[in-house]
Amino acid sequence: MSHFGSGTEQALHCLLFLVGRQNEGLPSARDLAEFQGVSPSFVAKLFTKLDKAGIVKSGEGVRGGFRLARPAAEISVLDVVDAIEGEKPLFRCREIRKDCVLYGDEPPRSATEGVCTIHRVMLEAERTMRESLARVSLGDLSRQTARKIPKAFQAAARSWFDLRQAERGLTLPKNLNRSL
Amino acid sequence: MSHFGSGTEQALHCLLFLVGRQNEGLPSARDLAEFQGVSPSFVAKLFTKLDKAGIVKSGEGVRGGFRLARPAAEISVLDVVDAIEGEKPLFRCREIRKDCVLYGDEPPRSATEGVCTIHRVMLEAERTMRESLARVSLGDLSRQTARKIPKAFQAAARSWFDLRQAERGLTLPKNLNRSL
Repeated sequence: MSHFGSGTEQALHCLLFLVGRQNEGLPSARDLAEFQGVSPSFVAKLFTKLDKAGIVKSGEGVRGGFRLARPAAEISVLDVVDAIEGEKPLFRCREIRKDCVLYGDEPPRSATEGVCTIHRVMLEAERTMRESLARVSLGDLSRQTARKIPKAFQAAARSWFDLRQAERGLTLPKNLNRSL
Repeated sequence: MSHFGSGTEQALHCLLFLVGRQNEGLPSARDLAEFQGVSPSFVAKLFTKLDKAGIVKSGEGVRGGFRLARPAAEISVLDVVDAIEGEKPLFRCREIRKDCVLYGDEPPRSATEGVCTIHRVMLEAERTMRESLARVSLGDLSRQTARKIPKAFQAAARSWFDLRQAERGLTLPKNLNRSL
């Protein structure tokens, strides 16, 4: 199993559609899920976590969708990973150094003080990994994807979300609404 | 859950007891497990993996235990992690970029070629983490722990394993053997 799950993947993909939007065409969690062909209930849970972590804010009123809570340049990939994955260390030290048969029930200080040497190596590896994720912002990711994705697609995506937001303001019967 | 499990932790602790031993007092997997108060059957499985990965070799004959298959300076923490954990990426990209509702059944090349931008960021973080683990050898770990652990303990540990190896050469009844 991978360390970071599909929650992180889907959250990052969803957030990229919020970069650059302030008021118009704010997508709901359901819009983002349906646009990408992923589970709406799962994405809703992700947005609860992102909201709690101060990464997104929900807009007000019936047309309200989500917007980024701060500039994309100030939201790192690490912020998103931490919001979604929570406390999830690379390595959990079980302190087996204390359980040596020679110690009996009373391990000496040399076996308990400080951080176990093996744990220290893992913490350093985790630090470099987290630093790497902290160096990349949603703004960076957005610029990189914008270079790869045709302008026509970007415009079509924007229109799709605009239309969805407009639909949310209507009170037409559900099947009529859907056919807009 | 942590990315690296207790298998990695126990394997590294066990291997440290093999550093510097060539013929005398070679511990068996059971010796290493009992010395550290961990499960013998679990440690036996770890040594099967370490053996397969070319990190340890088993000695011959009834007294045979395990030795390192190459100098401790040439076995990195990453080698051990890979031997125990196997293929375990930090992030598994599910390529959701292809499933956009606008594409229908035929995603364009821009959505399929190359590595997804998000995946690329994760691969870079994983690379730095692996590099960090590759920089530390069992020899380094052994020197670091030797500085923390009293010489008297190191001598007692050596004697304990020597005695265990000697016991394996004897054919005394099991309970007499155990009381040696």
